[in-house]
Amino acid sequence: MSPYLELKRECYEANLQLPQLGLVLFTFGNASVVDREKGVFAIKPSGVPYPTLRPEDIVIVDFEGQAVEGARRPSSDTKTHGVLYAQWEGIGGIVHTHSTYATAWAQAQLDIPILGTTHADHLTTDVPCAPPMSDELIQGDYEQQTGWQILHEFERRGFSPSEVEMVLLGNHAPFTWGKTVEKAVYNSAVLEELARLAYLSCTLRPEVPRLKDALIQKHYERKHGANSYYGQS
Amino acid sequence: MSPYLELKRECYEANLQLPQLGLVLFTFGNASVVDREKGVFAIKPSGVPYPTLRPEDIVIVDFEGQAVEGARRPSSDTKTHGVLYAQWEGIGGIVHTHSTYATAWAQAQLDIPILGTTHADHLTTDVPCAPPMSDELIQGDYEQQTGWQILHEFERRGFSPSEVEMVLLGNHAPFTWGKTVEKAVYNSAVLEELARLAYLSCTLRPEVPRLKDALIQKHYERKHGANSYYGQS
Amino acid sequence: MSPYLELKRECYEANLQLPQLGLVLFTFGNASVVDREKGVFAIKPSGVPYPTLRPEDIVIVDFEGQAVEGARRPSSDTKTHGVLYAQWEGIGGIVHTHSTYATAWAQAQLDIPILGTTHADHLTTDVPCAPPMSDELIQGDYEQQTGWQILHEFERRGFSPSEVEMVLLGNHAPFTWGKTVEKAVYNSAVLEELARLAYLSCTLRPEVPRLKDALIQKHYERKHGANSYYGQS
Amino acid sequence: MSPYLELKRECYEANLQLPQLGLVLFTFGNASVVDREKGVFAIKPSGVPYPTLRPEDIVIVDFEGQAVEGARRPSSDTKTHGVLYAQWEGIGGIVHTHSTYATAWAQAQLDIPILGTTHADHLTTDVPCAPPMSDELIQGDYEQQTGWQILHEFERRGFSPSEVEMVLLGNHAPFTWGKTVEKAVYNSAVLEELARLAYLSCTLRPEVPRLKDALIQKHYERKHGANSYYGQS
Repeated sequence: MSPYLELKRECYEANLQLPQLGLVLFTFGNASVVDREKGVFAIKPSGVPYPTLRPEDIVIVDFEGQAVEGARRPSSDTKTHGVLYAQWEGIGGIVHTHSTYATAWAQAQLDIPILGTTHADHLTTDVPCAPPMSDELIQGDYEQQTGWQILHEFERRGFSPSEVEMVLLGNHAPFTWGKTVEKAVYNSAVLEELARLAYLSCTLRPEVPRLKDALIQKHYERKHGANSYYGQS
Repeated sequence: MSPYLELKRECYEANLQLPQLGLVLFTFGNASVVDREKGVFAIKPSGVPYPTLRPEDIVIVDFEGQAVEGARRPSSDTKTHGVLYAQWEGIGGIVHTHSTYATAWAQAQLDIPILGTTHADHLTTDVPCAPPMSDELIQGDYEQQTGWQILHEFERRGFSPSEVEMVLLGNHAPFTWGKTVEKAVYNSAVLEELARLAYLSCTLRPEVPRLKDALIQKHYERKHGANSYYGQS
Repeated sequence: MSPYLELKRECYEANLQLPQLGLVLFTFGNASVVDREKGVFAIKPSGVPYPTLRPEDIVIVDFEGQAVEGARRPSSDTKTHGVLYAQWEGIGGIVHTHSTYATAWAQAQLDIPILGTTHADHLTTDVPCAPPMSDELIQGDYEQQTGWQILHEFERRGFSPSEVEMVLLGNHAPFTWGKTVEKAVYNSAVLEELARLAYLSCTLRPEVPRLKDALIQKHYERKHGANSYYGQS
Repeated sequence: MSPYLELKRECYEANLQLPQLGLVLFTFGNASVVDREKGVFAIKPSGVPYPTLRPEDIVIVDFEGQAVEGARRPSSDTKTHGVLYAQWEGIGGIVHTHSTYATAWAQAQLDIPILGTTHADHLTTDVPCAPPMSDELIQGDYEQQTGWQILHEFERRGFSPSEVEMVLLGNHAPFTWGKTVEKAVYNSAVLEELARLAYLSCTLRPEVPRLKDALIQKHYERKHGANSYYGQS
């Protein structure tokens, strides 16, 4: 019997949430879950429509994207997930979508500015948009380079993946992650709403000011600080 | 047996309407109901997702936000509700959401201009947007100050909470209220639609004129005046 | 037994379609059906929410809006319907909504320009927007004057109600009509989509040209001309 | 027994998908399927609402649009489908809709620019918008000329219908096609999403740059090239 049944089930359920939350059309997205002890992750198979996806279709691969278990070819974005798992030890799940408003910002090659407390409740910076990849890197191992594109952008900005759990890839679309894949799915839905709110505010008032620093800090600490008082724990 | 069963039930049902009306994503909102005789109000617990919320999860607190009954921590916005109940004796329920279009206006730090009779059927002024709080107040008791931010804005404009039952907090999101929590929920949905209509009119024609005074008065009196002739009573 | 059972049933079913087609929020709309032989029309009662509306709640009134049968107060827009039925003998049903995109154009006080064949399949002119009523008329019998506002605008433009079955009232919202109430409901949904298409085209390219005359005529005649070849009859 | 039962069934099911995918309002669209051996195609009858459509209502016609089997009049767009089937031998199905965002671009008479990898995953060019037809051609056999309008635009641009499976008709709306009608339906839904993404990016940042050539090629080859590695085959 497969040692990955539970991992596949968790990955399967996270993937199913993406169309339910309105974040994917057809096959435009994927979720993965890592098992750090075994050094593998589970990911959606490539090009399989969500309505026909079954838990046993989920593919198990190592961090280089090599197949460990599963009859199907893994998502074409598998190497991007692998690079992030290998380099960022604190993350447990990754989600990639082409959700509408987040992708519109990525196509516009713009950071999503922090304009309100809905945003500050989740991160204290603009949502970073990594510039499009150089032609040289595109010709290479494209999906692996996509992972490095994210890593280099975070390094360049001095961002931590535990503080900023989302990124836009210029011309492409968003990736999100979290300690668990449930958190990564949640972050994808939150990102889409932040992108929609900022689209509306910016088209209504193009010169809209960023959120003031005191409010950024207050809302973030309310949820995430040492003295957080949001939620039940 | 709890003396608050009916209050909890009413609060629970009002909260459930928020996702049904498309006004909240995940846990981004809360509704409360006051019992003026007992000097308490019922409010949603903090961070509990709507699909798993049960009537017994509702928390009973006094106007300072101190727990009276309930095993869970109340909404992080509890003190804002408490200040409004303490200062405005005529209101029976309060709703806070981050509904999309209303929040987009709040992020843009703009009043929602009165542009049509849909708006005038509900209030005769622009929907007021309170300016962002001063840094000093943010450092203090933030949620309590949020209540005072609303009260001071109404005082500054000479608005009555029985005439204008909604407000935007600059950079943040809307609050609505009413004689009952059902009316407060209704006002939240109305506000979201007024915000959407005004967004569309303003992006279509940026110099759109405000509604003329004669129409403002006519539509408001039709529903709310001494000779009102809308509805069945 | 009431002689109006069938008329009430038809009116009831037309009203129910409005929320199903996404055209009304809460009670913001109404549909009516005329019986020309009896000189009366059936209309929704005022302020009754659609989920609780029953066929027996429908009110029967004459063209002056006086009650003929029914325990409830008729829609506050009843006199507007009455004026149109009295003056336009060819129409069998009327619908009033505050549907989002049509109302946004009405608030902007702009005609909806004819930009494509979707529009030309239904009418060969811009959707007319009547200018806001004069203060003098607003002080008078407002709802009756609203009917005359529509009639005068059609007279001024030389429009026929059998050719143009929809209008926007500046600052207010749309009215539509048709030979039957089913057609009036259909026209309300078509108008909302035409308003949405034109909003998107105009915000994408503000100087978008109107549809060329040859295409306007072709598409209209295809559906409505003497040699029409659309549909099954 | 009809030799076209299977063809009608396939056409019926493709048509039903259009309202399910949110691509048509009322009767504003149609799908067809060709049987190249028999030299006929199946198409939706004209003006029949989707909720009442039955497989036996589907009409069988030859490439000139002449009825072969079926009691109903075929779609008014039948001759357009016929011209495309006659001239493009590789296509198996055609879909016409007035889907909202694609139609808004067609009304604006603008190509949908290629701005991101969602677009490049499906085609490596802008989505072409054919200019409105000349008055002379409109007066002729309009629907047949619509087919030639598409063919001439592809010829003028040097486009192949196997590489670019979608087009906008200026002032009108989109047509899509594919090796199968399922693929044509898929392309209609993809086109609507590409149109929506581009609308949002262009209204957010009017001077948004087109996707760089290296990314266009990479994403297209990933799905369609000789060494494609997307999907399961």
